[in-house]
Amino acid sequence: MSEKQKVDYSLYLVTDRALSLGRSNLEVIEAAVSGGVTLVQLREKEASTQEFYQEGLKIKDYLEAAHIPLIINDRIDIALALDADGVHLGQEDLPVDAARKILGPHKIIGASAFNVEEAVAAESRGADYLGLSPIFVTGTKPELVAEIGMKGISSLRRAVKIPLVGIGSMNQSNAYEAVKMGLDGVAVVSAICSQEDPKAAAAAIKAEVLRAKESF
Amino acid sequence: MSEKQKVDYSLYLVTDRALSLGRSNLEVIEAAVSGGVTLVQLREKEASTQEFYQEGLKIKDYLEAAHIPLIINDRIDIALALDADGVHLGQEDLPVDAARKILGPHKIIGASAFNVEEAVAAESRGADYLGLSPIFVTGTKPELVAEIGMKGISSLRRAVKIPLVGIGSMNQSNAYEAVKMGLDGVAVVSAICSQEDPKAAAAAIKAEVLRAKESF
Repeated sequence: MSEKQKVDYSLYLVTDRALSLGRSNLEVIEAAVSGGVTLVQLREKEASTQEFYQEGLKIKDYLEAAHIPLIINDRIDIALALDADGVHLGQEDLPVDAARKILGPHKIIGASAFNVEEAVAAESRGADYLGLSPIFVTGTKPELVAEIGMKGISSLRRAVKIPLVGIGSMNQSNAYEAVKMGLDGVAVVSAICSQEDPKAAAAAIKAEVLRAKESF
Repeated sequence: MSEKQKVDYSLYLVTDRALSLGRSNLEVIEAAVSGGVTLVQLREKEASTQEFYQEGLKIKDYLEAAHIPLIINDRIDIALALDADGVHLGQEDLPVDAARKILGPHKIIGASAFNVEEAVAAESRGADYLGLSPIFVTGTKPELVAEIGMKGISSLRRAVKIPLVGIGSMNQSNAYEAVKMGLDGVAVVSAICSQEDPKAAAAAIKAEVLRAKESF
């Protein structure tokens, strides 16, 4: 694309094959998108470069046809090889400014942030959105023990201008309040991937996000 | 650089911090280059993206000043972030043609090959050199059991035109014959990294490579 696209961060699916009840990424993604997911991050922490790339090829055509942006976790090389829409960078990944130099001005770069300091730094280095993590403590990332919480969302919202997505035990029951506190959307792994009906799960969370946004 | 550099493949050091007797990559590299290493591949199979990038930053200025090309194992994103001279791609990494699209015509792309079929495929996809692996069975890659051997070098030399580097238990005692059989250079890990005196070890292997080349 010739300029940066407008992104709807309302419901952001982060994939995890190990948590997908034996289904493929494509199966989960198709169901989740039909339920209302607006953005998909392909995350493959255990795969080789070749496997990660092949996983990306399997889902790219579907997402492109559905006009849903594809974000690649960590790996700028794979994002480039797939011509994905962007990358999401954690604190263990490349710095945002180094990534921006490689990817140019139009690709989406998201960065993880736990506190105001990290959020302000990522914004100043050129991040397009922030993934606040963890909003609540979650089983997916057991090494993280502290949580941002609802009050933390509010502080972070005042500290930066770019869109904020929250991840970490986000689900149907807390999505409304989290968006009211300042999130632009919620990111989920198991609340969609690990559900028997990912479409219905996505639709239920999406309804809460939209209910909060409509109330402003 | 504006066009592809001419590379001397005579003695190719592949780093491995776990095999470096507690020394840093930079310590081993400085000694090895002063002993005659002509090319360095930074390989970090266990590191996070951030750690790999930081390791690269530590050695890049030294290698640039020494006019020794820096090749990054597997990770095109890190090669781009460092503006390294190229990448080395194994069979579990991105395909050579996908890498070439990202890196453009001037960066060095090396590919691992075990047999004639892989070698011909990598050459046709745009590889600049091949890493034949393993010439002999080695402790560094225990999952590989078959070996190419001296006769295999000769077959591979007839199959492709691009430079050939051999890796896998290469050392002072077999470097001369391997180059006589058709290698442009030898790649080593432990024969330099794990030696008490990496400079002397490099010089001894380099002398054998040059003796073979001078005898043509």
